[in-house]
Amino acid sequence: MAESLRRRLPLLLLLLLAAGGLRAAERSGGSSSSAMEELATEKEAEESHRQDSVSLLTFILLLTLTILTIWLFKHRRVRFLHETGLAMIYGLIVGVILRYGTPSTSGHDKPFSCSQEDRPFTTLLVNVSGKFFEYTLKGEISPGKIHNVEQNDMLRKVTFDPEVFFNILLPPIIFHAGYSLKKRHFFRNLGSILAYAFLGTAVSCFIIGNLMYGVVKLMKLVGQLSDKFYYTDCLLFGAIISATDPVTVLAIFNELHADVDLYALLFGESVLNDAVAIVLSSSIVAYQPTGENTHAFDAAAFFKSVGVFLGIFSGSFMMGAVTGVVTALVTKFTKLHCFPLLETALFFLMSWSTFLLAEACGFTGVVAVLFCGITQAHYTYNNLSVESRSRTKQLFEVLHFLAENFIFSYMGLALFTFQKHIFSPVFIIGAFVAIFLGRAAHIYPLSFLLNLGRRHKISWSFQHMMMFSGLRGAMAFALAIRDTATYSHQMMFSTTLLIVFFTVWIVGGGTTPMLSWLNIRVGVDPDQDPPPTNDSFQVLQGDGQDSARRNRTKQESAWLFRLWYSFDHNYLKPILTHSGPPLTTTLPSWCGLIAHCLTSPQVYDNQEQLREEDSDFILNDGDLTVTYGDTTITANGSSGPHTATTNLDSRRTKSSSEEALERDLGAADHEVTSRGTRLVFPLEYNA
Amino acid sequence: MAESLRRRLPLLLLLLLAAGGLRAAERSGGSSSSAMEELATEKEAEESHRQDSVSLLTFILLLTLTILTIWLFKHRRVRFLHETGLAMIYGLIVGVILRYGTPSTSGHDKPFSCSQEDRPFTTLLVNVSGKFFEYTLKGEISPGKIHNVEQNDMLRKVTFDPEVFFNILLPPIIFHAGYSLKKRHFFRNLGSILAYAFLGTAVSCFIIGNLMYGVVKLMKLVGQLSDKFYYTDCLLFGAIISATDPVTVLAIFNELHADVDLYALLFGESVLNDAVAIVLSSSIVAYQPTGENTHAFDAAAFFKSVGVFLGIFSGSFMMGAVTGVVTALVTKFTKLHCFPLLETALFFLMSWSTFLLAEACGFTGVVAVLFCGITQAHYTYNNLSVESRSRTKQLFEVLHFLAENFIFSYMGLALFTFQKHIFSPVFIIGAFVAIFLGRAAHIYPLSFLLNLGRRHKISWSFQHMMMFSGLRGAMAFALAIRDTATYSHQMMFSTTLLIVFFTVWIVGGGTTPMLSWLNIRVGVDPDQDPPPTNDSFQVLQGDGQDSARRNRTKQESAWLFRLWYSFDHNYLKPILTHSGPPLTTTLPSWCGLIAHCLTSPQVYDNQEQLREEDSDFILNDGDLTVTYGDTTITANGSSGPHTATTNLDSRRTKSSSEEALERDLGAADHEVTSRGTRLVFPLEYNA
Repeated sequence: MAESLRRRLPLLLLLLLAAGGLRAAERSGGSSSSAMEELATEKEAEESHRQDSVSLLTFILLLTLTILTIWLFKHRRVRFLHETGLAMIYGLIVGVILRYGTPSTSGHDKPFSCSQEDRPFTTLLVNVSGKFFEYTLKGEISPGKIHNVEQNDMLRKVTFDPEVFFNILLPPIIFHAGYSLKKRHFFRNLGSILAYAFLGTAVSCFIIGNLMYGVVKLMKLVGQLSDKFYYTDCLLFGAIISATDPVTVLAIFNELHADVDLYALLFGESVLNDAVAIVLSSSIVAYQPTGENTHAFDAAAFFKSVGVFLGIFSGSFMMGAVTGVVTALVTKFTKLHCFPLLETALFFLMSWSTFLLAEACGFTGVVAVLFCGITQAHYTYNNLSVESRSRTKQLFEVLHFLAENFIFSYMGLALFTFQKHIFSPVFIIGAFVAIFLGRAAHIYPLSFLLNLGRRHKISWSFQHMMMFSGLRGAMAFALAIRDTATYSHQMMFSTTLLIVFFTVWIVGGGTTPMLSWLNIRVGVDPDQDPPPTNDSFQVLQGDGQDSARRNRTKQESAWLFRLWYSFDHNYLKPILTHSGPPLTTTLPSWCGLIAHCLTSPQVYDNQEQLREEDSDFILNDGDLTVTYGDTTITANGSSGPHTATTNLDSRRTKSSSEEALERDLGAADHEVTSRGTRLVFPLEYNA
Repeated sequence: MAESLRRRLPLLLLLLLAAGGLRAAERSGGSSSSAMEELATEKEAEESHRQDSVSLLTFILLLTLTILTIWLFKHRRVRFLHETGLAMIYGLIVGVILRYGTPSTSGHDKPFSCSQEDRPFTTLLVNVSGKFFEYTLKGEISPGKIHNVEQNDMLRKVTFDPEVFFNILLPPIIFHAGYSLKKRHFFRNLGSILAYAFLGTAVSCFIIGNLMYGVVKLMKLVGQLSDKFYYTDCLLFGAIISATDPVTVLAIFNELHADVDLYALLFGESVLNDAVAIVLSSSIVAYQPTGENTHAFDAAAFFKSVGVFLGIFSGSFMMGAVTGVVTALVTKFTKLHCFPLLETALFFLMSWSTFLLAEACGFTGVVAVLFCGITQAHYTYNNLSVESRSRTKQLFEVLHFLAENFIFSYMGLALFTFQKHIFSPVFIIGAFVAIFLGRAAHIYPLSFLLNLGRRHKISWSFQHMMMFSGLRGAMAFALAIRDTATYSHQMMFSTTLLIVFFTVWIVGGGTTPMLSWLNIRVGVDPDQDPPPTNDSFQVLQGDGQDSARRNRTKQESAWLFRLWYSFDHNYLKPILTHSGPPLTTTLPSWCGLIAHCLTSPQVYDNQEQLREEDSDFILNDGDLTVTYGDTTITANGSSGPHTATTNLDSRRTKSSSEEALERDLGAADHEVTSRGTRLVFPLEYNA
């Protein structure tokens, strides 16, 4: 049928155009001079430009309102609604106003149909009364929606190209996540985080996908489904909705200074999980069975998808790491730090180029940007001047803040202004159940398995909190809006939007009660171990000793991390930054010349001190366990007395290892923390 | 003829389309499945996205290279080439590579002609084999250039929409110019700056326009002109090229710490001059004589243009001032300064909204942004937290730096990648002569007139330096590229490009020699008066006394400024910021309640001190001349001994007025300067 339509199409179009042409002839017949026409065109372009300005202004107004209300909330310490939830509410209100308050346009901007060859061009030249105008392809529109497109100009203006989210708004958010990663706690829980992010997301995606396929079958039975909905669509939905984004939870954690390990687990999972979900959704899109029956499982296509997943993920990872390393080398070997402006600009450009480079090579820019952020924080940050450190942090903080709030207000707006919503109650209820089950099937079994390996168990209350914090945000939205061409995708988009609303409002608001209900410790600075003024004295007085003994060997299991850490500390850091032991001491003697060239002069100044620290870190002397001032876990809610278990090394080891790690975390906290630590742990471990 | 063509057009197009339709039918006849087609479309979109990434990457690479070379130059103190000149050179190189190194595209992306009604729509729906694609209007293409459009895909990709310059790149540059204005020296020379900017630009525009009209007439005689070139085009060229942009000169001034008054004159002129040139060019475009003969002078149209100029200028000014004032009020009356991130985000959004608001109202966004920047610096800056102050400064500094270097590398690139160049040697030579004469006719007579009124004359060497520094930059380029649809505009664009290249390279490189040749004092911190360590001692020993006496009453002529200053200090500052005298003292007693509400509590703390300063500033006691530590002029080149003439008030007046003004300039320098000043001027003026 499609074939016959296509055969008949040129004729149809010809007729259509003839009519259009005649109309044009009619108009030009009784018309004005060419100058007047030009003026009219100019006026139209001006009008369009004005509308663009107004739509952007709408968003700015929204953000400004959000900022002012956030301030009010922070000022009055309101915690039941997070800024992102607020942004959504304002977005909703403006969406309603735009939807029902603005008149539909006069129609002179009405789109016009004309024929073309069998594929759309990216550029179109249109001959209008002898003048040529250039048009660029914006995207496909499903045939049923043409009238909607015509309907309301203002609504169309506030509807952005979905790629804006991927190419402009997500990168700063994700980069900031990588750049502001609390590396210490992240690396301490690296194994668990990786398990949650990779295995967990895959499990969640698969479970949600299958459950939703059941729901779709049910809908077909009941007659609620009016178009195709394939199994791959369900899996794609699983991938989209598996990207957790506990931004609101983490903001509250940050504010309340909740437990650092839980913070690290949640933050690390959600950051990596976004990357996994993106790549997963691309691989599912790439899954295209070769046969006619798209429902059947095709092993070849499946393995191709897995290959695509691994390829894209590792490729993006490499891209990010490589540009990070290049930036580190450039900042190390030039004296750019004398000119903070140049340094900041370079840092910004290199980080941005990661994104473009990955996109140009066919990898995923957002994932590359994440790993670039982590690499920049780990290496380049150390080479920057003090001014550039704060500049880059602040720059990306502002960009992140604006982008995030923009996305959330856009979400609120989209509920009313997006013109292709398909809300199916069955599908929505099914989706809520599925994400609940998917999250449960991901957290509890994985935590059980991880606890088998972990010396320092993930407690039940932590597991419940993680289960609870699985809210969906910007990434799920961006993934869902990316492709809304078909019926199934539109339904998925509408459902995703509702899920994001629900989880951000309910879960965001419920975090504080949940924390106290689960007796999770608050009042800990996530940047460091328990506040020295309070907890540590309790430790000294309290019953910390035996639990300390139990926790002592916790880090021994993280052999992968230790291996990486020693490689990083001995080779990568000295090559890429001004810190670490001189390469001349760590590299074999035959590469003396290279080692000498690569080592920066600053390193030699601190050589003595560094060698001492070094011996603690590379763990050559097997029996010395380094735990980085390891203090953790279980204390009751906000008001109760804080107890903490502490692992106490010898004082010298302690303080020097502290110092090395504090340097990782940034110079600002360094002094205070290490001084604090020295003050706090006067006990000798072997005593 | 055009009319008959338009009548025949639909038929022609019909034929054209029939052929296209047939071809489409042929193709689809012997073709593959719809899935394959979809895949092909997707691949094309992907390919296009990849090319976008590559083209952006090209620019990032360019900027990175520029940054590294700038560092090298700064490191080695090379001054013959400024960073912008460098960016242009790199742009040129990459332009050559792109132009001659990339293959022209395969043609499957070839644009396609189809008919439409008599005006182009902003949106076009295209039916391709039953699927609908949305296209957006990009711009008009002159008929002769269609083949060029087809030619090279990569070249088209790196060619940005000219509106990008106006809507994305210029605003941060201009805002930064306003925000970083050295207010003290700017206001001191306000009258002269306004004269240069308004009168000067108008004179320059008119002279260049007329000279160019002569050149065009000559070209027509010689037969060098192949299309129309109206008088209004010449005037437009005059307006475009009158926007001076001595960024390179000022950078060198900054580096060498050249004379502060000269700096203020040049900077102020160029900043305001950009605004004037934009509005002037819009008004010239708006000049449309109603009759058939577009060459004749039409008084009505002329006055309409003047009205447009005044309307746009004052409207944009108001917009900028209003959003600045709103931001100041918001930051004053909320405690937003407890959350620097929110504050910075708000500041950024409000500043950006100025631009959009002005554009939405039909004013000029760039001009509004300039005045917004000045207002923000004058009022809002005082309300910001210390962290936000540095954040906002740094944020806009980075944006400005990136945008500026981007524009300059784009200029280099455009020389080769822009596909509509028309280089006419006669026109180019004429233009160079015209801008030289235009600049001369603007600087020297105006300076002469100004010197009649100024107590503190603009010396010949200053005039020569201003003449020399009239180089053209980003604004001229952006104005010229805005409209390149017609033959005359294309020729103007190519010529502007060459003028920018020439002036940036030659004038930028010649600044240092010129400064020493003209014996202009260097080694002065533009933020403050002569460095206390060196100059002032020379003053104390030297022959400064009598020249001080001559310069003493210099500021008395600036009655407009004094009026404004006292109004600003007594009413605006107390309302909009936390500084100034309490409104309860300055407002009449019957508005006591309002005054009390508007005055922030902080003000009362410093009330005593402020009232003292106040009396110095409002100059009620006529005979007390405030000159803000006025020290100036004429010292020889970089190596010679510095001499300066100083105006010495009584010590108390001196230091307190110093303090008030220093507060205007930002808190950072405050301490040092006022301490320095006290140390330096131990003499009593009346002694």
